[in-house]
Order: sequence, then C-alpha cells, then structure tokens
Amino acid sequence: MAKCVPRKMRRKGLASMAVQSVESSTTSAAAFGPAVALSCRECGERFDLGPIFACGSCFGPLEVAYDLPSGDPEGLRKQIEAGPDNIWRYAPLLPVPADVAALPSLSPGFTQLVKADRLARELGVTGELHVKDDSGNPTHSFKDRVVAIAVQAARTFGFTTLSCSSTGNLAGAVGAAAARAGFRSCVFIPHDLEAGKVVMAAVYGGELVGIEGNYDDVNRFCSELIGDPAGEGWGFVNVNLRPYYGEGSKTLAYEICEQLGWRLPDQIVIPIASGSQLTKIDKGLKELIKLGLVEDKPYKIFGAQAEGCSPVSTAFKAGHDVVRPQKPNTIAKSLAIGNPADGPYVLDIARRTGGAVEDVTDEQVVDAIKLLARTEGIFAETAGGVTVGVTKKLIEDGLLDPSLTTVVLNTGDGLKTLDAVAPTTGPSAIIRPTLDSFREAGLA
Amino acid sequence: MAKCVPRKMRRKGLASMAVQSVESSTTSAAAFGPAVALSCRECGERFDLGPIFACGSCFGPLEVAYDLPSGDPEGLRKQIEAGPDNIWRYAPLLPVPADVAALPSLSPGFTQLVKADRLARELGVTGELHVKDDSGNPTHSFKDRVVAIAVQAARTFGFTTLSCSSTGNLAGAVGAAAARAGFRSCVFIPHDLEAGKVVMAAVYGGELVGIEGNYDDVNRFCSELIGDPAGEGWGFVNVNLRPYYGEGSKTLAYEICEQLGWRLPDQIVIPIASGSQLTKIDKGLKELIKLGLVEDKPYKIFGAQAEGCSPVSTAFKAGHDVVRPQKPNTIAKSLAIGNPADGPYVLDIARRTGGAVEDVTDEQVVDAIKLLARTEGIFAETAGGVTVGVTKKLIEDGLLDPSLTTVVLNTGDGLKTLDAVAPTTGPSAIIRPTLDSFREAGLA
Repeated sequence: MAKCVPRKMRRKGLASMAVQSVESSTTSAAAFGPAVALSCRECGERFDLGPIFACGSCFGPLEVAYDLPSGDPEGLRKQIEAGPDNIWRYAPLLPVPADVAALPSLSPGFTQLVKADRLARELGVTGELHVKDDSGNPTHSFKDRVVAIAVQAARTFGFTTLSCSSTGNLAGAVGAAAARAGFRSCVFIPHDLEAGKVVMAAVYGGELVGIEGNYDDVNRFCSELIGDPAGEGWGFVNVNLRPYYGEGSKTLAYEICEQLGWRLPDQIVIPIASGSQLTKIDKGLKELIKLGLVEDKPYKIFGAQAEGCSPVSTAFKAGHDVVRPQKPNTIAKSLAIGNPADGPYVLDIARRTGGAVEDVTDEQVVDAIKLLARTEGIFAETAGGVTVGVTKKLIEDGLLDPSLTTVVLNTGDGLKTLDAVAPTTGPSAIIRPTLDSFREAGLA
Repeated sequence: MAKCVPRKMRRKGLASMAVQSVESSTTSAAAFGPAVALSCRECGERFDLGPIFACGSCFGPLEVAYDLPSGDPEGLRKQIEAGPDNIWRYAPLLPVPADVAALPSLSPGFTQLVKADRLARELGVTGELHVKDDSGNPTHSFKDRVVAIAVQAARTFGFTTLSCSSTGNLAGAVGAAAARAGFRSCVFIPHDLEAGKVVMAAVYGGELVGIEGNYDDVNRFCSELIGDPAGEGWGFVNVNLRPYYGEGSKTLAYEICEQLGWRLPDQIVIPIASGSQLTKIDKGLKELIKLGLVEDKPYKIFGAQAEGCSPVSTAFKAGHDVVRPQKPNTIAKSLAIGNPADGPYVLDIARRTGGAVEDVTDEQVVDAIKLLARTEGIFAETAGGVTVGVTKKLIEDGLLDPSLTTVVLNTGDGLKTLDAVAPTTGPSAIIRPTLDSFREAGLA
C-alpha cells in the first residue's frame, strides 16, 4: 500500500493540500472500524487512511475501502437491528469505531420512510411509493449524515477546528455538529447571503466568516487555507475529510433497505448536486447485496436536477460521458453546482442500472413541493421538489415503471426555502369573524 | 355513567358546543383502546367517549379515563419496546386502537433525549442533564403528538374536516396531519400574520382562512362555528377533540422515562402555555408508576414562562391558587396565552411535587437559545429558550438541584422563530478572500 507522501505528487498545490496533516496524525485501526484504506476511484491505488482526498498517482478522488464483515448476514442483521435509532446502527459498515454511538454527535439518521399512498394515487403509481424524508434529521437535511462521519474522522486525526464553505444546509450542519462534539467551527459563506440563512449558520456560536465575493471565491479561498499553515489542524468536512464525509450518504441506502424489510427498492430517485450522494447510495446498495443482507436483484437509479442547473441531465440525454459545466440559475440552490465532481460517475450508474437523469423547471419544482405537502404532509426543500417533480415526469415519459417499488428522496426542509413557495402560497380567504362572512366565502 | 345530553346542560352556548355530534357518531370500544370514558377533572362525573369537552354537570374540563393493562409490567415493557419508533409504541396507554400504527399519520414522537453534558458544565450541573428535543417531530414541534391523537379521534367520530385556530405551530401540525391522513383541513389565523408563518400553514393545501381581527376574535369565531350547523362534521383539535388531543402530551413522559432506561427523572422543566402539557406529563409519569414500569419515587415538576406572559409564575410566587390573566407581550409567541386554562392545575402539581414555576425576560430567552445552540447544537424555538433560561435561573436560585437527573423540554424549532435571534446573530467577520485578510481578522 502506498503512503501518500510528497514524492508521489505531481502538482504542487494539490500535493500540499492532499498530504496536509497526514504525518502528524496518529490513527489506530480500530478508529476506522471496517475501513482499511483509501482507494483511488480512477486508478485503484491504495493509501493509508488519512486526511487526504486526491490520489498521489493520478489525482483521482479517493474513497474509503473496507474489509466488511461477511459470512454471517443473519448475525449482522440482528446486530444492526439491536443498534441505536440513528446512523450508528450501521457502524459495522462505516469508517467509524465500534463504540461511535457513545461519542457526542447529533446522532442523525433513521429518518422516516413514508409510504406515500396518496402521492402514489396522484402520480398513477400502482406499486409501492415511498418518500425517504431526511428533513427529520437534527438540522433538517441529509447533511447531518455526512458531517457526522467527517466529525468522527476529524476526532481521529486530532483536528480541533471543523470548517466548510457553504451557502446553506452544510453551514448549519457543521455548526451544530461541532457544537455538540465540542469542536471549534469556522464556516465560510458569501458575505451577501440572505439574513435568514446567516442566522441559521451563526446561531451555533462558531466563527461564521463572510467572504467578499461569490461562492466560487469562497471555495478558492478555502483551498488556499487548507494549503497554508493557518489551516493547520482544520478539518474541512467536504475537502480534506471528503472521503469519510461522502460515506455518510451510504446510510440512506442502508436505511431504505432495512425500512423496506431488508429489501431492495426497484427504483430510487435521487437529487444531484455534486453527484456524490447518488454514487454513495449505489455503493451502499451493492454492499448490502454483497453481504447477503438483501437479495441480489436489479435496481434502477434515477438522478434528478433542476433545469436551471442540469449539466448531468443534459449529458445523459445527449449520450455524453463528459459533463459540460453550466452557470446555475434555479431556485433549487442546494443543488446548484454547475460543475458536479461526480457527474461522470452518476452517468455511469444511471446507464448501468437502466435508470435515467431528468430535470424539471422551477415552476415544476414549486408545484411538486406543494403536491408532496398536500398529499403527504411533508414540506420539502426545493431539492425535494426536484425529485418529486422528476418522478412525475419520468412516469409520464414511461421511464419509471409505476407498478414497481419506488423510493423518492427528500433531502431537506421547506422551512429553509420558504421563498420558493411564498409567492404562490397564501390564505384561501380573508373573512370577517362572523358566520355570515364564512358562508359568503363558500367555506361551509 | 352519565350520557352527556342537553338536559344535563345549564348554559346554552356551552351545552350546544359540548354535545355537538355526539349522538351521530358510532364508536366501538376498540377504537379507543384502553380508554373507557371521559371524566370531569372537577367533579369526577363520567361520560361516554365522544366529541365533548366540558362536564355536563359542572362545566369542568373533561379528560380521558382508562382501564390500563396492569399486572404484567415486564410484558408491557417488552410490548412497547417492540413497537414502532414513534408515539404509537405507547398505543396500549393511549385512547387509540391497537392497530393505530397501520393507519396513515405523521407518526410523530420518539424524538431524541439528548444527554447535554456541555450544557450541564455551563450550568454547573453535576448530575445528568438531558434535553428532550421535540424539534425532531415531523413539523418540528410537540404539536404533532397531540394532533396525531386528535386525528385518530376525528376518524372514529366520522369527522371529515380538521380545524383549529392558531398563530403558529398548531396550524402547520394540523395542515400536515390532515394531508397525510386524507382529511380536509380548515385552519383559522389572524389575517395579519407574518408572511413566513402564513406559508408554513398554507403549504399543505388545506383551507387557510385569515380572520379580520386578533387571535381572540379568531377563537371567538371558532367557538361560534362549532355550535353552528356550518361546523357539523368538523373536528377542532383543541376544542371538541381537546380531551383526546391533550393525551398526546403524555407520550413525552413515556419517552423520557423509557429513554432514561425506564427510570423517572428527578426534575423536569416544562414550558407553560395553556398548562395542558405540564399536567399531562404529570399524568403520564403517574401512570408509569402505577403500572410498575418505573420505580415509585418522588419527582419534581417545574413550569417555565416568559416574563412578558407569566400569569402562572406570578401566581406561584404570590402563593395564590388562582391565576390572574395577563395581556401577553413576549417574543415567546407559542407560550403567549394570557389566561391559561390549566393554570390552577399547574400550580397544584408544582407545589405537590416540590417544584416551582419561574419566568425569564425576553433577553434571557435569546441568551438561552444561543447557549443551547452553542453547547449542544440544538436550535430551539423561543419556548426552548424559556425552559433553558428558567433552568439556569432555578439553579442559580437554589430551587433546582444540580446534582440530580434533570430533563429540560425543547418543544419547537428555531427555524420558526428566526426573528427572535436575528438582531444579535451574525457573522463574526467579513473579510476579503485572501489569507492576509484572514490573518488580519485574527481568525488564524
């Protein structure tokens, strides 16, 4: 196994970022549970577990490789079911120590899988339709899952500050997780973010730094900081802790299957921002099959984007393997990544599984948010409007089979994107406080 | 057992409200599980289970009376533990049918009991301190618990419309629960409610009616509607379904004890709006003792109010049994009930258990919201600021023993009361996207 040391690096900037802190950290094997290495997704080269994120040989993205517990699926299933009602029940399948549940964390996950019969009727679904509602997480988005794993890695590497760049959900998730776990946090945002989002990010009491510039400027600055002595001891959850962070999304796959009674769904509709979540859900499903926790059968993965930021959907429809960056312009801000790092992997998974990638207009996003709210009482963030809207479109276009078992992801909470629905959501009537006025309004 | 029929009524208005629909409904005993009657809290007279809320003899409030499953605490405990991860695990102790979990509902409850070690250190608590965080419910407040029970009663009584008057959390909880369960909903609000709150209430697609008037006008109108043919078939969750609705709060007591390992806490700090929640938590704790699910030992119940609406706290400190109404003026809007119906019962419970009722200023509420956020990563609604603030004050005043096991309730979500903290919550620095600027700001 290669040590990720500077001599293997070819580009100075990336190299200094990639190896930051690896030699100062002391990690015991037990700290990462079944994880045994980081593995390059492009060339397959392996590296010791450390706070690195790019392959020293080919600069491909690194991901966690495991030696998973095999041979006793029934025992493993029982162990999981006896675990806590959060993602730590899956500790045997994650890069975390076996006793992770006892360490302070927000304990996210095990959110509701809602059997959406009323939505199914409206969409003409005759099979089972489920909504995996991740607005039930502690800070009300799926980000709590990924951040929880990153925090655990940060703890192992001896980092003392948790950081990220963000325009929304991630800032709150990092601020809250750092507070619970006793880390300092320092989150970077564009200085002109809406007041409500600033409050949600700042209330946890960490440092919140507004950067004079746009989101790209914020990211560029963070990359500089990681390579600088000033960033020493800092864990950027989605940069130098990214391989661990990403693994948190696997828990969505585990929970969906367990909540279906240890059964694979036939079809899953997943939103695409960077594309990481979709690829990790696929990874999680494959692990469950390999471990014998679910039956080995085909499943289709569908990706969902907003038309105003649809680089992956555009590439899918054009039959391309390469994703051409776009300048985002959509109300679905949490999905507005114009140059999604995992885009090519998403294309591959959608094609390999027989799924598709589709997009919907902002108007369709709003309609879908309201459809989900009035049929199931779930008030989704715009990203949830994207997945529900895309599901509707896929059924209409004959790409998603309405007679099968389908799971649609809602990854966030409508309270955080009130502006999206506000212009078209109001009282049905304003009346005087009298029965006559009530009758005149036709409400009786 | 008395039938609650008009001849027993003495005041026409209340009588017509109280008996509305009772004779048209057909209920089987199984529909209410272990509940056997409604019982007057004042005179003890019993009535058949029906959509009534005031005693036909003395006009006292009615509450649900049970024939609870006794004699096999170990079996009952196992039955509960094998149940679903929501309030329906306690179906054997609630006025609901045994198969309630299979009926469509938001499935609220079993929210996290957070061991708040970092908050404990700040408050000088040397014993165990826990926060029961009900922001984890589907619409992010404890109202989902009470509404879920009311919806089940509405189903049994054959009601087709769910209704309430509200200025906040309840509107969303009713709208969402009605949507999931397939009821029509019609929620009444003051016409000049803030835009964000209107969106949260309207998004679920039911009727949302703005009333030209203040909250008192809205309530008066609802009382008229219940007594009018136009309100036939309507279940007002906190009026004609109130006895059932209130029982939902018992689940907070059950969960706290189960999550403590079937153990009573020594002290609980509960917010007071109408006071119903506090009385029902006490009822729930007493039931657990009687059933042998927890050890019979003393516990103290503390009530928390905001100074700007502190009628119960004022009466407690003055040693009065009667609560004198106040005109609310506080940022803790969800607790702003100036004439709390259950105020006298709260006084009785606080005194009987050796607890107290205390209040804090709006400034202390904001400080406490931030304290909880920065120590535990929980962003509470103003009501959560009230309980945490009061806990701090009670410890400082020597009324709450910091060496014991204490549970503090957070009943709602900070995302719904952003305005409370917005003026004092912002970025710690605004910098240019350069390392120099970063260092100048003293952030390195």
